[in-house]
Amino acid sequence: MAGSAIKPTPLLKDELDIVIPTIRNLDFLEMWRPFFEQYHLIIVQDGDPSKTIKVPDGFDYELYNRNDINRILGPKASCISFKDSACRCFGYMVSKKKYIYTIDDDCFVAKNPSGEQINALEQHIKNLLSPSTPYFFNTLYDPYREGADFVRGYPFSLREGATTAVSHGLWLNIPDYDAPTQLVKPLERNKRYVDAVLTVPKGTLFPMCGMNLAFNRELIGPAMYFGLMGDGQPIGRYDDMWAGWCMKVICDHMGWGVKTGLPYIWHSKASNPFVNLKKEYRGIYWQEDLIPFFQAAVLPKECVTVQQCYIELAKQVKEKLGKVDPYFIKLADAMVTWIEAWDELSSSEEKSSKQPNGTAK
Amino acid sequence: MAGSAIKPTPLLKDELDIVIPTIRNLDFLEMWRPFFEQYHLIIVQDGDPSKTIKVPDGFDYELYNRNDINRILGPKASCISFKDSACRCFGYMVSKKKYIYTIDDDCFVAKNPSGEQINALEQHIKNLLSPSTPYFFNTLYDPYREGADFVRGYPFSLREGATTAVSHGLWLNIPDYDAPTQLVKPLERNKRYVDAVLTVPKGTLFPMCGMNLAFNRELIGPAMYFGLMGDGQPIGRYDDMWAGWCMKVICDHMGWGVKTGLPYIWHSKASNPFVNLKKEYRGIYWQEDLIPFFQAAVLPKECVTVQQCYIELAKQVKEKLGKVDPYFIKLADAMVTWIEAWDELSSSEEKSSKQPNGTAK
Repeated sequence: MAGSAIKPTPLLKDELDIVIPTIRNLDFLEMWRPFFEQYHLIIVQDGDPSKTIKVPDGFDYELYNRNDINRILGPKASCISFKDSACRCFGYMVSKKKYIYTIDDDCFVAKNPSGEQINALEQHIKNLLSPSTPYFFNTLYDPYREGADFVRGYPFSLREGATTAVSHGLWLNIPDYDAPTQLVKPLERNKRYVDAVLTVPKGTLFPMCGMNLAFNRELIGPAMYFGLMGDGQPIGRYDDMWAGWCMKVICDHMGWGVKTGLPYIWHSKASNPFVNLKKEYRGIYWQEDLIPFFQAAVLPKECVTVQQCYIELAKQVKEKLGKVDPYFIKLADAMVTWIEAWDELSSSEEKSSKQPNGTAK
Repeated sequence: MAGSAIKPTPLLKDELDIVIPTIRNLDFLEMWRPFFEQYHLIIVQDGDPSKTIKVPDGFDYELYNRNDINRILGPKASCISFKDSACRCFGYMVSKKKYIYTIDDDCFVAKNPSGEQINALEQHIKNLLSPSTPYFFNTLYDPYREGADFVRGYPFSLREGATTAVSHGLWLNIPDYDAPTQLVKPLERNKRYVDAVLTVPKGTLFPMCGMNLAFNRELIGPAMYFGLMGDGQPIGRYDDMWAGWCMKVICDHMGWGVKTGLPYIWHSKASNPFVNLKKEYRGIYWQEDLIPFFQAAVLPKECVTVQQCYIELAKQVKEKLGKVDPYFIKLADAMVTWIEAWDELSSSEEKSSKQPNGTAK
């Protein structure tokens, strides 16, 4: 196509931000150019704020480093992790859009079995804009997809489905394994393209990975806190898991759906399993208590907003998980700080006062 | 291959029966010959018992018609449906094997995307012999499959999984739609091969179809009652659904897993939607009460065998669904009769006294 050709406007062009946490130049965006170029990017720079992150020409973005986070949130910046990709949730907070797509900078465009490049973002948007089916399992997977429907025995009263809050995408090549599994199976690659999207049923928890994830920020944004990880914290690599468990309990309470499956991205590089083991080992131990906690968590009827749900969950975390380790008392406090900061930023109309290191195309 | 070539012994050759309900000659078995020939078949002839059903040469089978069922069960034969494929559950009862595979006679061998014929039975056996994961959702689907594992964030204490009781397979070509959906989408065909097996999570109900279904009879057989359908009953085409909902509640109670997904069979022919509508319409109405009933059903700790669970469930059906329609009172009684008949046949050692119209190869 000629450079001057008019590009069609992609879905939700002005209603979605792409959030990317990074410590390096964003050359990976070159491959995503046809799919991301018309969207706005929010880049959250982790680590040394004096370093300059190069963004390929032609992308419309704003960039925040640690100094920006500290300036914008003041003392509440303590709830945003440092030296951990958990810092990405700051991008969710400063966005004013209805939808968020977040992707890691080691994720590339995957191909489907026919060899065509997968427009991951478009699939996520389709997932978010069509209903979910959390109350009853459909054996032919997503009933709203072309060529599929609800099967015999599916109650008609449930066929309108529920509003979708989250779309969790998967990864070809390097699977999202924990350090012990990485160590045991260093050569395992995910080669299986499973052509399905499905709703995680109500009452069922799953491991939400932040690598390739989209959500309705307006609905569930305040629950997408990625916790205290990395620098100064006893744990890492549980940021997305924590958000996923909190989010799922709240979606179940609010009656919203969570999907997983398509789209795939190509995950290029396994992280160092020895480094990961150091970050994870407490989490591997703690999660044996966390899962029963979240499975049993009940939110009272009085909680009718996500913020109320989240504050209530923070209270339960402090009460019940505080006994597992004092870290969870600190985390519960940070959860409350996160909500306060979220509400503060939301109520502030003067977006320009934030002065991000942005640039326009 | 030469006719005299020695065939390898297939998995569970002497531990599995294939149950086929039918009203016609079993020519469809020709296509299944390479996969079924070494197994034993139990054919349940529905409708006119004076009709002769032809079975292709070389298959090892026993065949039961209505006269046989009446003779073997006496007055308890009332619990076995007539003029409805629900009669297939009589085959589960007379089997003495550990595993059952049941298939409809309009189901043929499907091909995978590479064009290879799918050995559906072998895939079911793999599903049954590997554990399930009912307590936590694995985003890369069956973690026990080659090339897959549990992902980051999956509690290690749950990685042993649960014993698998049921393997529910799917259908290419004609999807298993209810009459209203058939009427609205007469031309819809299922062309999507989803390369996945997954566990239906604990606490989640699904529509179990009897067309392509395998289970561990020793574990869950007594719960696989297909109810009162067809001749003299106000309803049809809810036989497998009923069994699926009862079975799932009991598997959840007992701690066993239920899988769905692969293998696919090729479903050749849509049944008449007008006839189906007549059979289904009360079920479509009733299922709006049935699903909440089964979702809320709790079995007491004292129920430690499937028989005890099933009798308890029958009691709850009578109490709670009896108010929906008197049919459920009759069905609850039939559920008790079924268990009595099951236990009677199990305790009887004189299998030969049943004198089926069998033939050996």
